Amino acid sequence: MDHLEWLACFASDLKRGDIAAAAAGFHETSYWRDLVAFTWNIVTFESRSAIADMLEARLSDVRPGSFEPEGSDGWFTFATSVGRGRGHVRLKDGKCHTLFTALMSLDGFEETSGPTRESGVEHGAIRGRRAWGDRRAADAAELGVTRQPFVLVVGGGQGGIGLGARLKRIGVSALIIDRLPRPGDAWRRRYKSLCLHDPVWYDHLPYLPFPDHWPIYTPKDKMGDWLEAYTKIMELDYWPDTACVRAAWDEQREEWTVEVERAGQPHILRPKHIVLATGMSGFPEIPRIPGAERFAGAQHHSSQHAGGEGWQGKRCVVVGSNNSAHDIAADLWEHGADVTMIQRSPTLVARAETLARFRTLYSEEAVKAGITTDHADLTVASLPYALLPAATRPTVEQIKRDDAAFYARLEAAGFKLTHGDDESGIGPMYIRRGSGYYIDVGASELVASGEIKLCSGAEVARLTEQAVVLTDGREIAADLVVYATGYGSMNQWAAALISQEVADKVGKCWGLGSQTAKDPGPWEGELRNMWKPTAQDGLWFHGGNLAQSRHYSRYLALQLKARLEGLPTPVYGRGPVHHRE
Amino acid sequence: MDHLEWLACFASDLKRGDIAAAAAGFHETSYWRDLVAFTWNIVTFESRSAIADMLEARLSDVRPGSFEPEGSDGWFTFATSVGRGRGHVRLKDGKCHTLFTALMSLDGFEETSGPTRESGVEHGAIRGRRAWGDRRAADAAELGVTRQPFVLVVGGGQGGIGLGARLKRIGVSALIIDRLPRPGDAWRRRYKSLCLHDPVWYDHLPYLPFPDHWPIYTPKDKMGDWLEAYTKIMELDYWPDTACVRAAWDEQREEWTVEVERAGQPHILRPKHIVLATGMSGFPEIPRIPGAERFAGAQHHSSQHAGGEGWQGKRCVVVGSNNSAHDIAADLWEHGADVTMIQRSPTLVARAETLARFRTLYSEEAVKAGITTDHADLTVASLPYALLPAATRPTVEQIKRDDAAFYARLEAAGFKLTHGDDESGIGPMYIRRGSGYYIDVGASELVASGEIKLCSGAEVARLTEQAVVLTDGREIAADLVVYATGYGSMNQWAAALISQEVADKVGKCWGLGSQTAKDPGPWEGELRNMWKPTAQDGLWFHGGNLAQSRHYSRYLALQLKARLEGLPTPVYGRGPVHHRE
Repeated sequence: MDHLEWLACFASDLKRGDIAAAAAGFHETSYWRDLVAFTWNIVTFESRSAIADMLEARLSDVRPGSFEPEGSDGWFTFATSVGRGRGHVRLKDGKCHTLFTALMSLDGFEETSGPTRESGVEHGAIRGRRAWGDRRAADAAELGVTRQPFVLVVGGGQGGIGLGARLKRIGVSALIIDRLPRPGDAWRRRYKSLCLHDPVWYDHLPYLPFPDHWPIYTPKDKMGDWLEAYTKIMELDYWPDTACVRAAWDEQREEWTVEVERAGQPHILRPKHIVLATGMSGFPEIPRIPGAERFAGAQHHSSQHAGGEGWQGKRCVVVGSNNSAHDIAADLWEHGADVTMIQRSPTLVARAETLARFRTLYSEEAVKAGITTDHADLTVASLPYALLPAATRPTVEQIKRDDAAFYARLEAAGFKLTHGDDESGIGPMYIRRGSGYYIDVGASELVASGEIKLCSGAEVARLTEQAVVLTDGREIAADLVVYATGYGSMNQWAAALISQEVADKVGKCWGLGSQTAKDPGPWEGELRNMWKPTAQDGLWFHGGNLAQSRHYSRYLALQLKARLEGLPTPVYGRGPVHHRE
Repeated sequence: MDHLEWLACFASDLKRGDIAAAAAGFHETSYWRDLVAFTWNIVTFESRSAIADMLEARLSDVRPGSFEPEGSDGWFTFATSVGRGRGHVRLKDGKCHTLFTALMSLDGFEETSGPTRESGVEHGAIRGRRAWGDRRAADAAELGVTRQPFVLVVGGGQGGIGLGARLKRIGVSALIIDRLPRPGDAWRRRYKSLCLHDPVWYDHLPYLPFPDHWPIYTPKDKMGDWLEAYTKIMELDYWPDTACVRAAWDEQREEWTVEVERAGQPHILRPKHIVLATGMSGFPEIPRIPGAERFAGAQHHSSQHAGGEGWQGKRCVVVGSNNSAHDIAADLWEHGADVTMIQRSPTLVARAETLARFRTLYSEEAVKAGITTDHADLTVASLPYALLPAATRPTVEQIKRDDAAFYARLEAAGFKLTHGDDESGIGPMYIRRGSGYYIDVGASELVASGEIKLCSGAEVARLTEQAVVLTDGREIAADLVVYATGYGSMNQWAAALISQEVADKVGKCWGLGSQTAKDPGPWEGELRNMWKPTAQDGLWFHGGNLAQSRHYSRYLALQLKARLEGLPTPVYGRGPVHHRE
């Protein structure tokens, strides 16, 4: 049975409501990943029986139909009782090994584009008409003041902005707030040498791709300017210089009461939904180090580090060995500082060029082959997380062979390498813990050559007035300590902005439960709490890298739109709330 | 002989240097339109002998070769001694009827894009490296101050901005100056109801197309915001709030001395080239009317008209009957004014929707058929202007039939219609005189119904303290007179900014010499002085609608790049300088 035949059978089984027959088309161990289409959730079912259970619960409501193959490589389209979807099937010995279904649009609420775009002007003579500029200005002045947004997006980085564009296009009134004065400032404020570590093909925002001369690795200020322009072009309602002070869920009104401080003035917002798009890298994690208060030099978290300027000839200690640690150490070195990196645990290092070579779906070759960004996103999403390590391991092996000399030099310098607990490389590591790696854009050579001094296999024990003291007794004189020690769970934002109670109710964000480092079990098989309903009504989390933010913002926007329009949205397959970090 | 065979013969004739044989492949009356590829000029040869003369003069220098058909519809690519080109041939009875050749790139100076895009960051550890933000800021601070731009673009509207992007991409240092405080302000300052009269598919700027939800008719403030964002995204060097006071050509240094006033401060610039991109609609033409100084009401040119607000119940006279006149009259009517339009001469009116229906190369259907904007531009350019009226007349006939009831209502109201002296419609009229028409977006219905009062067939004779008096003796009481009387030749900018002497040396801009209304002969067959060398070294004119600005900016940028790089650029086929308006 090929997948065209399989799809026809499956469609027919579903149409007849014959769940046993439909389930029989799956292997006992098989995977169905659904993005909102069948479950109003983002969830993967990992066995025939789990799939059958879901169909029992959902089939009569979803009423899937109109299955049509798209080409011959497993892709198809389908319809549900509320919208249109795309899907993908992979067979093994004639039975389904993986199935992927994703809701793409809601009937009657499709985005306007191309032939359905707006006119922009009502031709004719109309007394009392308002010009676009006046209307836009009035909209902007009213929203959040005399008219409440349906959605409040807290955080105006690339995540919040891209989601804002999706919501605008789909007709959901949304207000984005951000603490900083201008869209893009979260990038502008970082250390000068920062560039995106992912290549341009991976980084497009929704709807408006970078033009084709855009550099491969976008410099951070250029990214900031792009985001600012994008915000304007997409007509987003964006309040800069606005901090979220606290938010409380009103059970009676089923809405949030959100205290914000806008340009220093207190203001109350009452949205039905809050999306925390404050970023995975939004909540700095600084270890409590004995003696830190006595240290006479400067010390700050990597997110506060402005760059190497001014540190020439100074002794700088960077605690940590992931992306920011390496970037900051290299930048300090470039500015003539004496730099020591404290590596606390083994680190995954992969050269940027090497990674780009293996990311074929997002590349110039993909563009040439007509693979759109949307299609690449769907292709990536079609593989269940459970199967990702097996898929990436051969690439890791290849990378280790290709860059063997590079890795040997690093190890010779005392650098502790890992390629993931199960040798599955950077992709799974990112999904599991969002940290633990360095995409090498130059610093590794400095580490290998000893230009950046390395202390590995020890933790920081304490600070003295003048030095960092390690657990193995080593003492490193320091004028500056940078804590490139990462970020907390997005869950902490819920605690800080809402309450510990709500944060506990919602549980941990991110991570699959793979029981590898920093990703405690039990296995969930999806990113916890990301882009899908949480245990707190009206509270959502949005984030991830540019590609994830771009792709999953679609499903988050559809879920919010459905709620705005009052469609029933029974959530199936909620994961258990998880508390361990 | 089909065009593949013809092209092979032509290529072979040129390779052998057999000009007689090459010329024999053309009809006696035939057309070769060249955009910079063969002539370093924009010129159309309109006979076999003119073509032979050109080849005699240019063949040994151009050394054309590598002719390769592109598809089967007459398109081909070719190479010259300095670059790559695209061309198109139309045959009639096996001989060439029209040939089109356009230079697309200069060897060794190709734009980087796609696979040749920049990295954006130099990976590695490099002491003293400058981050993008610092480099960009330094570049911006230096240009025009410690380092002179090669090109000064006077006027930062869509023309100057699009050209600036082309120059940036091709590595020509250019500074754009504009009087107004922000890019896009030329649009923002116009009357509120203004929207582009051309549909979105026609209006893209180079490199960064509007996203696919963009409205069909862009509102003017939205266009302003787009231009501002585009300027930033494309990293253009743009001085707002900077007026060009005067410019003088220094024969010795072969450069311009340009006095500008930047934020009120005098400043000297010394570019090698000046591009006047001040717009066809930049130099207001206000008739001298006896008594104007005595008129007690308000009076201003259409370009100064802010909109209908505040004129409710007032008597407003709009002098003129072209685009601005209609838009302003309708806007005043919508705001409750009592409006009279003075039609001084017959006007071409075409409904916007009707025009859009016939502009198939720029449409949703074209997008669907895979016709890129570039290809549409080249297709339009491939037809010599001499053949345009014959090509457009059938469309005009069709439009007259389709909209017969509409035209009848207008005529019944006393409106004097024309479809061009030779019934060739709006396209040729725009190329000939850049005026004389209204693209109807609603005002015509008000004229037809008498809501906008019409005085036709008379000129304004004089003003009294309270009224406009027409040449036929009618007297119209007025609180406001708007002179929607059009704009002067771009040549006037040369007179105003440089000298009358230089303006005279250069002659008239725009117009073909068709000997129809406002386009005096002799026949030139190309737009005078536009995007090509003028009689004044280092002086260029850029402008036109969004489509023309987009397309011809490519050739202007290539001509400037060639001069920057010191390539020989012998200009062949200069037209005679023309003085009559």
